[in-house]
Amino acid sequence: MQRVKYSAYLDKIQSPEKAAILIKNHHILGVSGFTKAGDSKAVLPQVAKRALFEDLKVTVMSGASLGYNTDADLAKNGALYKRMPFQADPTLRKSINNHEVLYVDQHLGQTADMFQKIDKFKIDIAIIEAVSITEEGYIVPTTSIGNSPIFAENADKIIIEINTTFPESLEGIHDVKVLKKQPNREVIPVLESDTRIGDPFIKIDPAKVVAVVYTELPDSPAVIAAPDEKTKAISEHILKFLENEVEEGRLTESLLPLQAGIGKTANAILSGFTNSKFKNLTMYSEVLQDSTFELFDSGKLLFASASSMTVTEGCSKKVFSNFEAYKDKLLLRPQNISNAAEVINRLGVIGINTAIEVDIYGNVNSTHIAGTKMMNGIGGSGDFARNGYLSIFACPSMSKEGRISHVVPMVSHTDHSEHDVDILVTEQGLADLRGLAPIERARVVIENCAHPEYKAQLLEYFEDAYKLGGHTPHSLEKAFAWHMQLKTEGTMKVKDYACNEIEVKA
Amino acid sequence: MQRVKYSAYLDKIQSPEKAAILIKNHHILGVSGFTKAGDSKAVLPQVAKRALFEDLKVTVMSGASLGYNTDADLAKNGALYKRMPFQADPTLRKSINNHEVLYVDQHLGQTADMFQKIDKFKIDIAIIEAVSITEEGYIVPTTSIGNSPIFAENADKIIIEINTTFPESLEGIHDVKVLKKQPNREVIPVLESDTRIGDPFIKIDPAKVVAVVYTELPDSPAVIAAPDEKTKAISEHILKFLENEVEEGRLTESLLPLQAGIGKTANAILSGFTNSKFKNLTMYSEVLQDSTFELFDSGKLLFASASSMTVTEGCSKKVFSNFEAYKDKLLLRPQNISNAAEVINRLGVIGINTAIEVDIYGNVNSTHIAGTKMMNGIGGSGDFARNGYLSIFACPSMSKEGRISHVVPMVSHTDHSEHDVDILVTEQGLADLRGLAPIERARVVIENCAHPEYKAQLLEYFEDAYKLGGHTPHSLEKAFAWHMQLKTEGTMKVKDYACNEIEVKA
Repeated sequence: MQRVKYSAYLDKIQSPEKAAILIKNHHILGVSGFTKAGDSKAVLPQVAKRALFEDLKVTVMSGASLGYNTDADLAKNGALYKRMPFQADPTLRKSINNHEVLYVDQHLGQTADMFQKIDKFKIDIAIIEAVSITEEGYIVPTTSIGNSPIFAENADKIIIEINTTFPESLEGIHDVKVLKKQPNREVIPVLESDTRIGDPFIKIDPAKVVAVVYTELPDSPAVIAAPDEKTKAISEHILKFLENEVEEGRLTESLLPLQAGIGKTANAILSGFTNSKFKNLTMYSEVLQDSTFELFDSGKLLFASASSMTVTEGCSKKVFSNFEAYKDKLLLRPQNISNAAEVINRLGVIGINTAIEVDIYGNVNSTHIAGTKMMNGIGGSGDFARNGYLSIFACPSMSKEGRISHVVPMVSHTDHSEHDVDILVTEQGLADLRGLAPIERARVVIENCAHPEYKAQLLEYFEDAYKLGGHTPHSLEKAFAWHMQLKTEGTMKVKDYACNEIEVKA
Repeated sequence: MQRVKYSAYLDKIQSPEKAAILIKNHHILGVSGFTKAGDSKAVLPQVAKRALFEDLKVTVMSGASLGYNTDADLAKNGALYKRMPFQADPTLRKSINNHEVLYVDQHLGQTADMFQKIDKFKIDIAIIEAVSITEEGYIVPTTSIGNSPIFAENADKIIIEINTTFPESLEGIHDVKVLKKQPNREVIPVLESDTRIGDPFIKIDPAKVVAVVYTELPDSPAVIAAPDEKTKAISEHILKFLENEVEEGRLTESLLPLQAGIGKTANAILSGFTNSKFKNLTMYSEVLQDSTFELFDSGKLLFASASSMTVTEGCSKKVFSNFEAYKDKLLLRPQNISNAAEVINRLGVIGINTAIEVDIYGNVNSTHIAGTKMMNGIGGSGDFARNGYLSIFACPSMSKEGRISHVVPMVSHTDHSEHDVDILVTEQGLADLRGLAPIERARVVIENCAHPEYKAQLLEYFEDAYKLGGHTPHSLEKAFAWHMQLKTEGTMKVKDYACNEIEVKA
């Protein structure tokens, strides 16, 4: 019981089942959890269970994606009315695309500010995972902070989940500050990745706490495929590009703070830095994956700031069995500070994110399959791409045995416009689009990034459109022809061009 | 001659024709001028003249659009290789769309940072209009600052145009600071619209000054149509929305700092505030138009910060004949500070910009006609929409005698994605998209913003697409059908629906 150092909470301790009874139909819940880290593992799953037997449909706002089957069960059992600002669950995704769940896909850095703007999202209950409770009744979060501070501030009631699987030594890695509303918004005085500006706990009004439950379930582990030939090639292209920036004197060998999205490609890209020439690297990111700890171990990385730690089972064992070795090198922040435009711009973050597809003019689709079906969401990619020093987007050039080209004439949904994308990279190569007009970009993207099997097709599209004129040449009749053919014939490939390898004149 | 208070420049005084000889083929020029204000009126036009007789093709980087026929003549005479970051000239636009001039359409707040990232844009000669020169040889700009400070810093040589038509009392309205490069970028300590953080002049290295010329040509006046029924209706919808935000306690009656784009609609919207209930307004914008001075005169506006003043001939007379009455109420800044993400976010700017077309899901096209032909450019709209407190986009619902609907199934080019757009407004009404999922947005946009003559058509598109499923329902086969029909049949209207007025179920 010593994890709860505030005695007034002791009589609030109860079972998750009982605590969950406080959640009513139509409630708006603000829950901890960011890319499966630090999420509600005891109370929120009860909502899914209860929804099988009673009318219980709630809005769930989180940091980002939740772990285990929480989102899946909520969706499957009809317990979700609206979900925001991010998800990455196959079952929930299906419910969203079937219009069974309303989904608001938001920049992760912007959810917090919504509460001062929209009354309808007043939070009924916040559910926040904690490693411990301070003597003042404040919450020490676990492996993520996400939106928990703003949820706690805006909630009528708070349920705390004490998770005993995490070492209490997690206390100290958090830096929590709730920003004032406009017109009193202050400077966010983060000047370096490691600048502390707040408290190591979430200050709450103890009177709001209605239940405290215990759990010992670890975070559901990240499952990340090892780097393969393609992701290694992408990483190498990025390293080579950055090495050149250093050689030319535009960056130093410690670069600028790095941000990397989540998943196999982003993890592989960061892993690549382990054997690079760079030194004294820092990260100002939203999620720390296994690669962050590889970089610490290799001595390449000095410090990492993020909003969550999402690691594989093996990495988790390594980190938590020897947490003191890492503790001084990392910091977790609320996601409106890890993803703050102000800080990202000031620090000059190098943002590395993945794309579903990119087009020849540098527009990026991060969210929608064939322009309609939601995959995960934009996450924080826009926060970094829009305001950082460099915005890099990576994807494979081709997939599904060549049936899909990820370099297309026109993206079927635009999350990052041509104005916000500096670098495109596939396993084929890298296109530096900075300072280029659209017709210059098209040639570089086709030449450097497209798979050879699709180059002729892309070039034909571009050249036909070019003849029609226009700053950004397109033939609207054909812009989505590849996506449509994929649907009807199972491939984007036009027969005549299959397997042709051609050279593009730059 | 007393306008040049630095004696070492006196022997640099020469004719514009002679000064222009310093400009060579392939040069990169960084010129003053932002929305026709404070541009080079003597030397840059000489480049166009010379290009008729010799090989002279240059890259021209400016603040934003230039005045008179400067851009037109440069384009017409083949003097432009590349132009950035903005233009608004019909002749140049045609050259861009014919691929005779390369155009890089950039966020206006981001051009300045490009110089630390890309060596290829090293500036050969900066040409900067000045009202006077200080005793240290520094430049006091005229009616805009734009990118002039960063151009001067990055240029090998500087040509100054002393414009005697402007009163010397302009000295004092400028606040100039050149930000340090990353990793040494500092906090931008602007806490209010009127915070001063720099000098009232552009510090330069006097040794770079190679020529000083005199001119007395005023800025080419803004030509702004008076508010009409449509733009008045748009203004009223916005005022009503903001009044409601005040009534509900989310904003105060002084709102938050306002930004408005340029042109008839934006000017009409701001004019509307003259007779509103709001008090003690401020502006943190990029351009001050006539409406700003109307608001000063009405006592509604306390202070306005921007990067330029672009007013009509009448307004210009009023302002400059009595400049002391306005001087303490306004401030001009470099455009990377007027448009800084950090400041816009901190102050919580309410951004009001115009769109070429919007779609039912809240995506906005600000730049391209039919997805291909450049109109002007994104300007600063993205700087404000992405990082402000509220991003409002306005356009007429319909134009060309009903042949064009500005509310379409899918925008033909995306400048502002669904993630960055809060409010859409036409003369028909206003759609508040905050916190809505795409399928909710579609119904509100069709109901509130579409013209009655296009409602049934839009609804049919949406309902057909809805049946196909997907988070953002689209039928890719038909997404651009309206744009294509406009091209082939001269109208977006499907016959059956013309003049049908229907109600959309919300």
